[in-house]
Amino acid sequence: MTVISGLTEQIYSDRDIMALFSGTGIIRRMLEVEAALARAEGHCGVIPASAALCIHDVCHVGDVDGMLDLAAIADASIAAGNIAIPFVKQLTAAVHRVDPEAARYVHWGATSQDILDTALVLQIRQVASQLDQDLLAATEACARLTAVHRDTIMVGRTWLQHALPTTFGAKTAGWLQALERSRLRLRQDGIQVAQLQFGGAAGTLASLGTSAPAVSQALAAELGLALPAMPWHSHRDRLADIAATLGVLTGTLGKIARDISLMAQTEVRELAEPGGPGRGGSSTMPHKRNPVGCAAILAAATRVPPLVSTILSAMIQEHERALGGWQAEWDVLPQIASLTGGALRHLVGILDGLDVHPLRMKENLDATKGLILAEAYALALGSHIGRLQAHELVEQATKEAIRNDCSLPVSIRAALSVDPLMRDLFSDEEIEQLGKPENYVGAASSICDTVLAHWKQSVGT
Amino acid sequence: MTVISGLTEQIYSDRDIMALFSGTGIIRRMLEVEAALARAEGHCGVIPASAALCIHDVCHVGDVDGMLDLAAIADASIAAGNIAIPFVKQLTAAVHRVDPEAARYVHWGATSQDILDTALVLQIRQVASQLDQDLLAATEACARLTAVHRDTIMVGRTWLQHALPTTFGAKTAGWLQALERSRLRLRQDGIQVAQLQFGGAAGTLASLGTSAPAVSQALAAELGLALPAMPWHSHRDRLADIAATLGVLTGTLGKIARDISLMAQTEVRELAEPGGPGRGGSSTMPHKRNPVGCAAILAAATRVPPLVSTILSAMIQEHERALGGWQAEWDVLPQIASLTGGALRHLVGILDGLDVHPLRMKENLDATKGLILAEAYALALGSHIGRLQAHELVEQATKEAIRNDCSLPVSIRAALSVDPLMRDLFSDEEIEQLGKPENYVGAASSICDTVLAHWKQSVGT
Amino acid sequence: MTVISGLTEQIYSDRDIMALFSGTGIIRRMLEVEAALARAEGHCGVIPASAALCIHDVCHVGDVDGMLDLAAIADASIAAGNIAIPFVKQLTAAVHRVDPEAARYVHWGATSQDILDTALVLQIRQVASQLDQDLLAATEACARLTAVHRDTIMVGRTWLQHALPTTFGAKTAGWLQALERSRLRLRQDGIQVAQLQFGGAAGTLASLGTSAPAVSQALAAELGLALPAMPWHSHRDRLADIAATLGVLTGTLGKIARDISLMAQTEVRELAEPGGPGRGGSSTMPHKRNPVGCAAILAAATRVPPLVSTILSAMIQEHERALGGWQAEWDVLPQIASLTGGALRHLVGILDGLDVHPLRMKENLDATKGLILAEAYALALGSHIGRLQAHELVEQATKEAIRNDCSLPVSIRAALSVDPLMRDLFSDEEIEQLGKPENYVGAASSICDTVLAHWKQSVGT
Amino acid sequence: MTVISGLTEQIYSDRDIMALFSGTGIIRRMLEVEAALARAEGHCGVIPASAALCIHDVCHVGDVDGMLDLAAIADASIAAGNIAIPFVKQLTAAVHRVDPEAARYVHWGATSQDILDTALVLQIRQVASQLDQDLLAATEACARLTAVHRDTIMVGRTWLQHALPTTFGAKTAGWLQALERSRLRLRQDGIQVAQLQFGGAAGTLASLGTSAPAVSQALAAELGLALPAMPWHSHRDRLADIAATLGVLTGTLGKIARDISLMAQTEVRELAEPGGPGRGGSSTMPHKRNPVGCAAILAAATRVPPLVSTILSAMIQEHERALGGWQAEWDVLPQIASLTGGALRHLVGILDGLDVHPLRMKENLDATKGLILAEAYALALGSHIGRLQAHELVEQATKEAIRNDCSLPVSIRAALSVDPLMRDLFSDEEIEQLGKPENYVGAASSICDTVLAHWKQSVGT
Repeated sequence: MTVISGLTEQIYSDRDIMALFSGTGIIRRMLEVEAALARAEGHCGVIPASAALCIHDVCHVGDVDGMLDLAAIADASIAAGNIAIPFVKQLTAAVHRVDPEAARYVHWGATSQDILDTALVLQIRQVASQLDQDLLAATEACARLTAVHRDTIMVGRTWLQHALPTTFGAKTAGWLQALERSRLRLRQDGIQVAQLQFGGAAGTLASLGTSAPAVSQALAAELGLALPAMPWHSHRDRLADIAATLGVLTGTLGKIARDISLMAQTEVRELAEPGGPGRGGSSTMPHKRNPVGCAAILAAATRVPPLVSTILSAMIQEHERALGGWQAEWDVLPQIASLTGGALRHLVGILDGLDVHPLRMKENLDATKGLILAEAYALALGSHIGRLQAHELVEQATKEAIRNDCSLPVSIRAALSVDPLMRDLFSDEEIEQLGKPENYVGAASSICDTVLAHWKQSVGT
Repeated sequence: MTVISGLTEQIYSDRDIMALFSGTGIIRRMLEVEAALARAEGHCGVIPASAALCIHDVCHVGDVDGMLDLAAIADASIAAGNIAIPFVKQLTAAVHRVDPEAARYVHWGATSQDILDTALVLQIRQVASQLDQDLLAATEACARLTAVHRDTIMVGRTWLQHALPTTFGAKTAGWLQALERSRLRLRQDGIQVAQLQFGGAAGTLASLGTSAPAVSQALAAELGLALPAMPWHSHRDRLADIAATLGVLTGTLGKIARDISLMAQTEVRELAEPGGPGRGGSSTMPHKRNPVGCAAILAAATRVPPLVSTILSAMIQEHERALGGWQAEWDVLPQIASLTGGALRHLVGILDGLDVHPLRMKENLDATKGLILAEAYALALGSHIGRLQAHELVEQATKEAIRNDCSLPVSIRAALSVDPLMRDLFSDEEIEQLGKPENYVGAASSICDTVLAHWKQSVGT
Repeated sequence: MTVISGLTEQIYSDRDIMALFSGTGIIRRMLEVEAALARAEGHCGVIPASAALCIHDVCHVGDVDGMLDLAAIADASIAAGNIAIPFVKQLTAAVHRVDPEAARYVHWGATSQDILDTALVLQIRQVASQLDQDLLAATEACARLTAVHRDTIMVGRTWLQHALPTTFGAKTAGWLQALERSRLRLRQDGIQVAQLQFGGAAGTLASLGTSAPAVSQALAAELGLALPAMPWHSHRDRLADIAATLGVLTGTLGKIARDISLMAQTEVRELAEPGGPGRGGSSTMPHKRNPVGCAAILAAATRVPPLVSTILSAMIQEHERALGGWQAEWDVLPQIASLTGGALRHLVGILDGLDVHPLRMKENLDATKGLILAEAYALALGSHIGRLQAHELVEQATKEAIRNDCSLPVSIRAALSVDPLMRDLFSDEEIEQLGKPENYVGAASSICDTVLAHWKQSVGT
Repeated sequence: MTVISGLTEQIYSDRDIMALFSGTGIIRRMLEVEAALARAEGHCGVIPASAALCIHDVCHVGDVDGMLDLAAIADASIAAGNIAIPFVKQLTAAVHRVDPEAARYVHWGATSQDILDTALVLQIRQVASQLDQDLLAATEACARLTAVHRDTIMVGRTWLQHALPTTFGAKTAGWLQALERSRLRLRQDGIQVAQLQFGGAAGTLASLGTSAPAVSQALAAELGLALPAMPWHSHRDRLADIAATLGVLTGTLGKIARDISLMAQTEVRELAEPGGPGRGGSSTMPHKRNPVGCAAILAAATRVPPLVSTILSAMIQEHERALGGWQAEWDVLPQIASLTGGALRHLVGILDGLDVHPLRMKENLDATKGLILAEAYALALGSHIGRLQAHELVEQATKEAIRNDCSLPVSIRAALSVDPLMRDLFSDEEIEQLGKPENYVGAASSICDTVLAHWKQSVGT
């Protein structure tokens, strides 16, 4: 089957999720739903037990491609409007080859969308489960980094400018928390979305008459899905919720990838993605180690938000079943899932092999020769001479330091020394101590402890 | 102050939410945060109690516009990069006019984003509370319609074509459920997002030294907000979550408005928006009653999804505080909130005064002269002559009915009569009964009962 | 290779364009670029003529899949960051198998992005050419409809309500014009985007030394592309322009599909999509003819706008070559192209076989019993008794017509008859003529003539 | 009137464009259109000349707020569905106060959307003109930088890693070209969009009878707009085109702002935004100079693409005039325009006062101790010992240089010296020259010349 540039797609998409939503992947799930429907209806006496058994057996064939002609399904679906119609025809024919009588009961009472939506829900449940595992791995990696680098001082940056000292652990603690929040939310959404779709042509299950409730209940039980109070053919909010949750997760992944790629810049060199043969190198530029994982994550984080927008826009679905909105979901939900999953796996790979350079972090802290600690001096002075005067003195000393290309401690000392009233406020030793970034990281280290404790509780370790 | 086309904006936006996020609205909240900060720091002994009291008093001035020059704040913010910097300067000056000593302690230890984010969280809390009330009103209206029209038969439509009969109550039950799901989710998200932002310049609260935890705790308590394990200056997932939840709600509102506007088409006339002087009329086309409320909702449902995409894209925020991403949120979150709120209020207005025309619904059911019940005939026949043969007979009868422009019951009777084996399968009375849509609505009415019971439990009635 | 749900994708996507951007499709284009590069460099004496010849021959192999291992390229690309790096390695090996010496000159002086971007440009040129043909077919179909239905009166609708009479030709004339505008714009954009990408690692072509200009010129000539003043590795505006133009075209397609699907509603029945075996039918609902083509178009029109947003967001590309933005384009541009192309082909299919029901159009005009002509009466009366008084009289007559369920002409006549001053203003015949919609279509028919004349000139017929 | 957070909006929006689309701004334009309509109809004898004159005079009142009650228009528009309906009522009343007879002819034959769309077109024309001027200023600034820094060598960066040397002029030449392309495209689109909207309720101008063509022509002439072949009430492609063009421009602005902000990072310090009182400073962090202009541009570049998506999605407009799609445009087009305009003005401000640090650019080039020139060595060696062997030797020397923390020239010399066959290939002087970045900038400088020549021709200097 022709593919939309699957060659590049898989650079950022998760391959397992791509397989789950591939032609074969979706047909397998539809067979699973048809089999469960036959069993449920057999169980309720709506169709003969023998027919149910036969349909079940045919649906569980090992070689799907041998039984069904996917290319023909694809061809016919263009005129039919969805793949379920030609699929049901082919499945009916396959059952007919085994037992013509049983073939009469294939897909009994269901509408195309019942099968497609329920298959989708089963796929999403599997996606949610996979992402839960990968998120656990990602938070574990963050937790390790947070524990190790609890006190690794580095520059805190705002507006892409040096701001104040912090620790690398505090940064990874922030990543950890955001990832854990996504894990918990995804878990809830995965449960919410696991709802049977079963309503027949107009959502009333009229064709099943009084057996409708029993069949619905049995079918939900067969598939391990919840039974909603009514079909949701044109109410897509649960799908949209989980799409949005994946979007938010991708946003967090993008934030982390942006942080890492900025810290991996040649001029910053505080971090590097894991290397290895064929990874991120350039034959003609041997000094490069391209953050290829971050690129994949950032590309995913650029692509997913508008796809979430599509899902939200597609919610405007007409009447009992829609014209256009439902169809728009078909390839977009899989893309959201596989892009998110791919970005997450890239991040796990990066975090697991991340090169951290604490020495370089320290060097960057010192690059502005103490200016980054202006606030510390201002505060210390403020308790003696008042905030405003302290502020002015430090601001002046800062300008002098820049003009004379000397360090801030030196400049502060010079500024104090000219005033007999301030000359003895601080000893040289005290001035030096105030200029040490490790003395001005505030709550950074304790934040690490708190976050790790929260996380351990959250994952039940 | 110049406004971006506020004139048209308010056709679909909620005015209360617009006011909440207006220049004055946001400044009021910022004052509330600065006051609480002063109180918390006074309480913890970080600043003098007298200063705390003075700042508190100044912040609670009745006439904000008299104390602060908002136009000047706007002017200065362009160079400063945000409104908090000139706001703090003006507030400091205002406090200075009362007590120069106290002025030294305004905004102590906080960074601009602490104030802006916490003010935002307070605003969102209020939005969530208002929407909860409005959603309750909307579900109540849906519940009334569902109860009244439990058995009001009408056409179920798929692909914009007549499909099978259903009831209007089943349709409004679907609306009710989706709205109630949004209400519950919004309630949770409203709680999740109500977190203090307080971290100082780089999220470490270094300037508060060992008092940081106590001040944070006191400040959170003052504002009734939760105290997060660490600041979230560049981790915006909670905001994105609630933005997405509003997006999903707007999607549901759009779905309902699409349904109503389609049913209000001149050719369909099953529903009409409430009329009234100046509402939806046209002076030169007196037969029109434009569904102006639906138009506003659909416009909002077109606008909100891309705005949610913006919030997700803006999550890629650099390091400790971002360059561009944070700034992109400022007007987008308010727009999402006011568009959603406006659409919701439009819907409540529509539902409360909705004109429902059961007779017309019945007429539309009959418009295809019984063709809509082909499935009912096929099923009834199938139990006698087998599904396949029944299907073929009905398909043939259908074609005859269309060719002869007669009703399906007549055509079915003719088809049966030519075959001695089938001639007596059904009496004329039975054939007529099968052709009555009210006999083929399946679970539609019972769905209404189930949904109403669920909803009553959910709202605690 | 695993595919992202290619099964459903092709319901709305154009298969030729999908093939063009498939794994094999893109590799073929990359081979074409590498071959041209070798020829150009051979021609300029930068590489040996024999090497150029050998590389050319290898690149023009018939059986790409036999020569290159696409699955291995896919595997390696994940670590490499793009597919060009492993592709060049495999191509070099393939050349080496033929002539080890020639293998040294494969990809000489180029960077990965040079090959990928130039291949993309070649693909887009082909897309533009195909769409031009399909747009021509679509406008021809519209022109036929416009000519045939120049005077076919029907309801003009605004806000989904009956407004005033118009003709079906005027409606299709609007479609025609919008499609023709897209055709012209796409033609221009196709020319604009056909620019060689060739700059080497940082856009300076330093590795080619003084031969750079000559090689660039020769390469552009080989491929029939324009030679830009400088490489555009991180300036993607031309690509974004054409993406947007496709987005606008899809918007127009969506508008037309919305119109058709609304007119195909069971209650309206003015149009029907072409039928045929397996097309839009439902086995259990024989009365349905689902507008499956419109559904595909509307789905595409829901999906494309956010994809255009992605391309615009991805324009923020860092420095000389980007991290994330470029990568985000890879699968999005192909999706935009194939969705637009698929929607367009669906429309051509619909228009070519469209069932038009002029009688039903007339019936719908009459459904409001003349109310749709209130404006005509008001105007005619206005010239006698003044606009305001006329307006009031007609408004009153309208209300009476609705209350008495009589036609507007009858009601007008009754209203006039009670006033001796107005009783004789119009004869019965005049009143009847005013109530004929064909007498109140204004410029509708002449619009058809004008639009057809413009279009003929535009396409050069 | 309540504003949506206008306080923050103006940090990134252009104030002139905001004023243009403010309540007063739009009403002024609507008055202009109504005046022109009256004049045109007076001229064509459709309304009395005296009425035309009176309406014209009233519409040209100086004090709009004195004549019309905008708050009342806002209030009434919620029920009416648009602002034109209550506006026309108030305008009619205002005319009536002067001349009751003339009041009968206000808005004669037009529909609300005629006035709103034509007013919008007039506003967009003004926006296009302003942006043309600002783009000229931006390209002039780029041209100056390109001329001055034609040979200012700096690091070319790809994937946020050092790649090869380039010049700062080559970078600004890229900016210049992209901005100039947007200027030309915007100019064309500005012309395309300047089309009269005039069709009456259903686009047929039936109410004007045979005078319709003459009035249309006269009205277009009055306003200096083109007269389209037919109204375009529900065909919005021209508006979408210009929205997309603004989106592409914003993408380019975002790319430039990203470049500048990355070069302004504390660790890179090659550029700084202009400083000045109150601009980008931090009282407690005196070493910071926040790139506040870049933040505003990047925020705009985050916000505009989804807004363009809205405009594209909103193109699906039903029948003759739409329900929801048209309404969705109202505030989105103004936002696109004012965000784009604001970002552009920020860029002009940045470019005009940009601090460029060529010394620091040189230092960054040297930071990897010559590794950035590995390709230069490989090429030079390649011509002697073959590409492959040369590549291996340089790769090895690179690794040694990193291990020994020595420069690449030193390491290359060491590598060559151990092999008697290569020892004398290059003199020490030659090795040193190869290690000078200024000798390996390829076409960077000549690109500047070409681009400047193209641009001069384009702007006609």
